Amino acid sequence: MEHAANTASLYEQYVTELQRIADVRYSAAVLQWDQETYMPPAGAGFRAQQIATLSELAHSRFTQPSFINLVNELSDRKDLHDAGQKNISLSKYDVEQQAKLPSAFVRRLSETVSRSFNAWMDARRQNDFRVFLPLLGEVVELKKQEADMLGYESHPYNALLNEYERGSTVELLDNTFSRLQEPLRNLLDRISRCPQVDDSLLHQHFPEQDQWQFSMQLLEKMNYDLQAGRQDKAEHPFTTNFSSRDVRITTRIDEQDLSNMTYSTIHELGHALYEQGLPADQYGLPLGEYASLSIHESQSRLWENNIGRGMPWCQSFFPVMQHFFPKQFGGRSAEQYYRAVNKVTPSLIRTEADELTYHFHVIIRYELEKSLIGGTLSVEDIPAFWNENYQKYLGVTVPDDRRGCLQDVHWSHGSFGYFPTYSLGSLYAAQFFESAKTAVGQLDEKTAKADYSDLLQWLRQNIHIHGRRFNSEELCKNVTGEGINIRYFMQYAEAKYRFIYAFQTEGIAI
Amino acid sequence: MEHAANTASLYEQYVTELQRIADVRYSAAVLQWDQETYMPPAGAGFRAQQIATLSELAHSRFTQPSFINLVNELSDRKDLHDAGQKNISLSKYDVEQQAKLPSAFVRRLSETVSRSFNAWMDARRQNDFRVFLPLLGEVVELKKQEADMLGYESHPYNALLNEYERGSTVELLDNTFSRLQEPLRNLLDRISRCPQVDDSLLHQHFPEQDQWQFSMQLLEKMNYDLQAGRQDKAEHPFTTNFSSRDVRITTRIDEQDLSNMTYSTIHELGHALYEQGLPADQYGLPLGEYASLSIHESQSRLWENNIGRGMPWCQSFFPVMQHFFPKQFGGRSAEQYYRAVNKVTPSLIRTEADELTYHFHVIIRYELEKSLIGGTLSVEDIPAFWNENYQKYLGVTVPDDRRGCLQDVHWSHGSFGYFPTYSLGSLYAAQFFESAKTAVGQLDEKTAKADYSDLLQWLRQNIHIHGRRFNSEELCKNVTGEGINIRYFMQYAEAKYRFIYAFQTEGIAI
Repeated sequence: MEHAANTASLYEQYVTELQRIADVRYSAAVLQWDQETYMPPAGAGFRAQQIATLSELAHSRFTQPSFINLVNELSDRKDLHDAGQKNISLSKYDVEQQAKLPSAFVRRLSETVSRSFNAWMDARRQNDFRVFLPLLGEVVELKKQEADMLGYESHPYNALLNEYERGSTVELLDNTFSRLQEPLRNLLDRISRCPQVDDSLLHQHFPEQDQWQFSMQLLEKMNYDLQAGRQDKAEHPFTTNFSSRDVRITTRIDEQDLSNMTYSTIHELGHALYEQGLPADQYGLPLGEYASLSIHESQSRLWENNIGRGMPWCQSFFPVMQHFFPKQFGGRSAEQYYRAVNKVTPSLIRTEADELTYHFHVIIRYELEKSLIGGTLSVEDIPAFWNENYQKYLGVTVPDDRRGCLQDVHWSHGSFGYFPTYSLGSLYAAQFFESAKTAVGQLDEKTAKADYSDLLQWLRQNIHIHGRRFNSEELCKNVTGEGINIRYFMQYAEAKYRFIYAFQTEGIAI
Repeated sequence: MEHAANTASLYEQYVTELQRIADVRYSAAVLQWDQETYMPPAGAGFRAQQIATLSELAHSRFTQPSFINLVNELSDRKDLHDAGQKNISLSKYDVEQQAKLPSAFVRRLSETVSRSFNAWMDARRQNDFRVFLPLLGEVVELKKQEADMLGYESHPYNALLNEYERGSTVELLDNTFSRLQEPLRNLLDRISRCPQVDDSLLHQHFPEQDQWQFSMQLLEKMNYDLQAGRQDKAEHPFTTNFSSRDVRITTRIDEQDLSNMTYSTIHELGHALYEQGLPADQYGLPLGEYASLSIHESQSRLWENNIGRGMPWCQSFFPVMQHFFPKQFGGRSAEQYYRAVNKVTPSLIRTEADELTYHFHVIIRYELEKSLIGGTLSVEDIPAFWNENYQKYLGVTVPDDRRGCLQDVHWSHGSFGYFPTYSLGSLYAAQFFESAKTAVGQLDEKTAKADYSDLLQWLRQNIHIHGRRFNSEELCKNVTGEGINIRYFMQYAEAKYRFIYAFQTEGIAI
């Protein structure tokens, strides 16, 4: 009895301390959100310093010996309740990983990526990779050091992959990508022999103000809780959260392309619904956090592609779009819209790519990062590597850096090892979507009526509510009965594009 | 030589540590700014916790023995440069004060005022003081404890006054307010015997969007650096800063009253120009901070009243207003506008009061707070005290709590002892303005051309650049040759209202 009380009180200490650390982490996230939405430009210098201080503080508090001892002590307690045991076991792993990095290193990395983000913005403005080069070089150097400190087997990139997706390795990804490429190529070949889809209805003038209002309606109708979230404009769409009761997204609007805003908004909505569905009573604890980046991405992809680029969604939302854009969409049909947003064609920009060629955008980045972190590619040679591989994989010629290797924000943030989770996310999304269809009766009919409550409830109960309790593969097995399997994505894609491009079924070999 | 190097290195340590602490303080300020501008309502609970954690962290780091020892060690070093000696001497005072408060108390106060802010918002919505009462009671209890911990002579309110205005006491304020009241009453009496000014041109419909655009132009023309600042909308206008390179203001817009937005914007601009003028190289150090709240308020008042409610300003800006509001202001003159914005009349709302009756709004709050903290007034009796004194001092009947004791945000923030600095600020403003007129040639002519560069430069050089180097009275003596003297305010007011109300000069007895 006394021992039990003692365990309960130790656990209470652990919860309080971890929640304090979360307060600091989430505060840093507020500062970052502000940096990318509203901060006046002259504030950048001190802001970088402020974020670095919070990052260093959170890290040093998380890795202080008294906290590590507390976690270790609790990990031996058998009288701890189940959720407590799971939290402790995940925290034990986390502190062991984080303790490999000195707090001064964490600070230095934070300061460097803030400066590097600004350099990347400048480089984009000037459309010149060389402006970004010195800072990117510093970031890559630090990330290599980080890999060395974290330790790895066989490839330094594994250490970085593992930070976003525990257990992910070059070996596993090489395998997945190589298995994915052949059926993807076959499908793309068949599509390329068919008459191309007409997507001209998407490329009209769509005034910013109308797009904004449409996006707000979209979010509301698709169950985003605006009492616990908001949307703002930013250079780059992202989702961030400061608890599951304050989950924010950003969007950017291109007046010449409605689908750009629409699908980026649904994508971020998917991320946001996941964060809003995490258990608030586990604030700051592992069970209150997302399972992994690939699972996070499975949620954004599922809503963006499996739902948002599906015919039932188009049936329910095209009339709404006609309401907002009567001139542009008058006399057009939901099916025309559906075909247009599913046009398959190799392109330059990842975030605007179709669901099939998208994977090649990821593979190029994956190969590039692997070489960069592995030391066989130098930072100076990134543009050449990039342009060469866009030619090789997608057959497109990169006209300039802005539409080439400067298009993504990730490297400026020091996010190496992040891109592969996008492809994994699409694969998981298709697999989850198949299970959802079985579990939620008449999903298509409900989607066609813009009724997402059953689907969302299913995602909440099967995925969101568990937080980090299961890793990606465990979760996938629980939900779908098996681990990741590219078959689901290929079947989904095969059926969709066969309808759109009207080619003969040849069967897919995977 | 070795000793000197040692001092330099100790001072370096001190600067680094204090700047880290400032990073945390300013981070909390970002979270507060967000809370009052953009935060979705459901985020309030965790946000209160996050701000409390940062406040506690900043406090405990500031009062840790190693830092106190460092400051004490440096305060004995004679080989420290002048700016260093001044910083150390101010920090020594600050740590001694702060060390009287336990960090757990700081956390509890922070959490309580966050909850109390939300209760105050609810109470305003419901127009019912009783909704605010329980939380206000908690806050007052904590502030009394704070006064006891800080220590005081003769009156516990002195401890709280001293936090905003070092050296300020009930005795000094009683004296100042009693000396101010008689000439103020005389002037008001004379005004009341004159025909009233017609201010109907201010009370038309001014669309929100047009007011916003006018306010942005106002800020730009009045030298607000929008590269190092921004304006947003909030329930209550305020200025905040996260360095002197990121100084933000908020405004609120009443479509039935243009002067509400206009003068609240110029007021916040005055605060913001001060913060933008503090030396950036002293970031986080005492010399990088404002001198005192009354000096801060002198800057907002000088721009709002001495400049913004003056004839030259009206001459330059009325045409701009006619441009934004052609229907409302067509056929009206700058002089009509000038008279309207200087109408003197007892009213219910402090922030909308004229320059004369304003002081009575402050005196009522001062008397109330003194009784509350002194223990002779209980929280329940605030509305009765309030209403009675509005009748007594201003002759107005308070119709409801929203227009009565719920009108100000300050108590919900735990800011007791703050209001008196508003009156002191007006007195300093008039005194500084008189010196500025002598030092800056042709100030009226420049103001009439909307050229504020010489005035701003004078304020920068004489007030802003010094940060906290001088306290209010030292600064006042340096700038004007004497300490605070109500004569300047009364002379300024006498001349202004004699012109507007056309009464005979009887001389002012002060």
